[in-house]
Amino acid sequence: MVPTVEWKDGVVRILDQSQLPDKVEFVDCRDYETVGLAIKELWVRGAPAIGIAAAMGVALGAQAVKAADYDTFRKAVGAIGDHLAATRPTAVNLFWAIDRMKRRLDALKTEPIPVIKQKLIAEAQAILDEDIAMNRAIGKHGSAVIGDGQTILTHCNAGALATGGYGTALGVVRAAWEAGKKIRVVAGETRPVLQGSRLTAWELMQDGIPVTLITDNMAGTLMRRGEVHVCVVGADRITANGDVANKIGTYSLAVLAHAHDIPFYVAAPSSTVDLATLSGDQIPIEQRNPREVTHVRGKEAIAPEGVEVVNPAFDVTPAKLITGIITEKGIFKPGELADKMRSR
Amino acid sequence: MVPTVEWKDGVVRILDQSQLPDKVEFVDCRDYETVGLAIKELWVRGAPAIGIAAAMGVALGAQAVKAADYDTFRKAVGAIGDHLAATRPTAVNLFWAIDRMKRRLDALKTEPIPVIKQKLIAEAQAILDEDIAMNRAIGKHGSAVIGDGQTILTHCNAGALATGGYGTALGVVRAAWEAGKKIRVVAGETRPVLQGSRLTAWELMQDGIPVTLITDNMAGTLMRRGEVHVCVVGADRITANGDVANKIGTYSLAVLAHAHDIPFYVAAPSSTVDLATLSGDQIPIEQRNPREVTHVRGKEAIAPEGVEVVNPAFDVTPAKLITGIITEKGIFKPGELADKMRSR
Repeated sequence: MVPTVEWKDGVVRILDQSQLPDKVEFVDCRDYETVGLAIKELWVRGAPAIGIAAAMGVALGAQAVKAADYDTFRKAVGAIGDHLAATRPTAVNLFWAIDRMKRRLDALKTEPIPVIKQKLIAEAQAILDEDIAMNRAIGKHGSAVIGDGQTILTHCNAGALATGGYGTALGVVRAAWEAGKKIRVVAGETRPVLQGSRLTAWELMQDGIPVTLITDNMAGTLMRRGEVHVCVVGADRITANGDVANKIGTYSLAVLAHAHDIPFYVAAPSSTVDLATLSGDQIPIEQRNPREVTHVRGKEAIAPEGVEVVNPAFDVTPAKLITGIITEKGIFKPGELADKMRSR
Repeated sequence: MVPTVEWKDGVVRILDQSQLPDKVEFVDCRDYETVGLAIKELWVRGAPAIGIAAAMGVALGAQAVKAADYDTFRKAVGAIGDHLAATRPTAVNLFWAIDRMKRRLDALKTEPIPVIKQKLIAEAQAILDEDIAMNRAIGKHGSAVIGDGQTILTHCNAGALATGGYGTALGVVRAAWEAGKKIRVVAGETRPVLQGSRLTAWELMQDGIPVTLITDNMAGTLMRRGEVHVCVVGADRITANGDVANKIGTYSLAVLAHAHDIPFYVAAPSSTVDLATLSGDQIPIEQRNPREVTHVRGKEAIAPEGVEVVNPAFDVTPAKLITGIITEKGIFKPGELADKMRSR
């Protein structure tokens, strides 16, 4: 699998996912502003991956800061973190990763600035490495809910491409596949940005895991025909009560799964859990450019000029529709998640 | 409103809807094979409109038949009808219209062939004129279920473009609008062929009726936020028990509407009711070219080459999820529809 985000020879190298599946192209970000643009423009996307990219952006920006004393340095790096935090409002991993970088910076107060700069790179790298390890743990736990011969419906891309590697929802798929289960994935294309068709289908085909692509509105009829056994999706933010913000369309799938008695799982690292937010209705939902809806991939127009559009990037699935939340620490009921996270 | 299908100076003039909303272009069909192609390739689509087009195709084909006696003529025109009936398997209006043309042909047995040819044109024109009249009656009945200030969610295009004119589901919208109700339509874009964004949004904007375009997967979250008050969709076939085959995605919307206590109506002329088919699971569902899913409008690729795809053009919504079926004869519960149709 190609790396989504990596620190390479002093630059942050980001796979430009907006070009997939046509082209596998990388952007070498030489300043933190370019990392911010990469997040905003969805060259890198997926809650864990944007957290990693932001952490690397903080480390990259820190290298260029010319400061004689710690306080000046701290202030400049803090501002870089704030800039990166303003790129997208919904995924909590973004804020989590930037906060972690700032905490690390605080802890390194007594070190010489050149040493701090090196240790910030190491911290960003640690966030990436830990993410992959967490995804493997998520996969290991989650594999238990996937039966041999089952078909898994997923939405958007919660795969290697959305993370440091291996994936969350697709980590569960990969772990089941690696355990020898004969499974199949149904990938919803995920309008408007088509992460399902462009990324999930591509990623699974690269690994030889059977995948069938559908338009989002086909999910219900497949469920009714008994052709979906379990749903597994990722998350951009999970609130204290177990509500889940994820890619637009997730809520509709959860309602459909509930109506057909199909288990509905959310797979996410604990950095996605936002205990400070009590319930899903308090999550800010990013409204994106109407052009994502009216044009396909920014080019082909598919709607009349000037039509009114709404384009929420995410929706909220209430805890009651979620069978379980698969984390690196195990699988929990949405209602018990907060306690489990606090006791870690 | 531009005419969808019309008989004009000895040709069947069909609006090429595959070009909308970019271009308003007409195809002048000079033989029945071109009419068949227009139906197959979705230049004309929508259950009532393809019925009208097929009837006109039969009339057009009949003009070119060189036969000295009625039996030869009858056989040739029958074969034309069979050719046109083979274009698409799901919409029953297609078969209904062709059957009606054949019945008319049978009734004209004693007439001279030149007279029969003229009367077949008149019959096709009558099907068109009656369709518009039925749509106005559907609108009048259906308007009663639309409250002032309400937002109506619709799917695909059951509008003037899907019919002879005025529309079925959009006929209900138009009648409510003409009655002075301050309404708004939410149009699901309707992947893969995008009849919602390309046709419904365009058609409503032409009439100045407020419309908001969404991707299909946004419907659930709008319902949850209380932003949809009633759903009205069209139908391609309604079976004796009140099950409804309609554009893929209709079933998912019906489940979502049910989960949110939102009334779900189907608007269709009585020619859509197929009493010979007992329930929805007996309706043949057309599987269309995977390229509709993997490429947008046959051009822009949006999925990896060679990905497996399913592409059912329709799904079946069971009667229990349908609040009422709005016909030209009134609004009926799905379960009472068969009796009402038989007693006409």
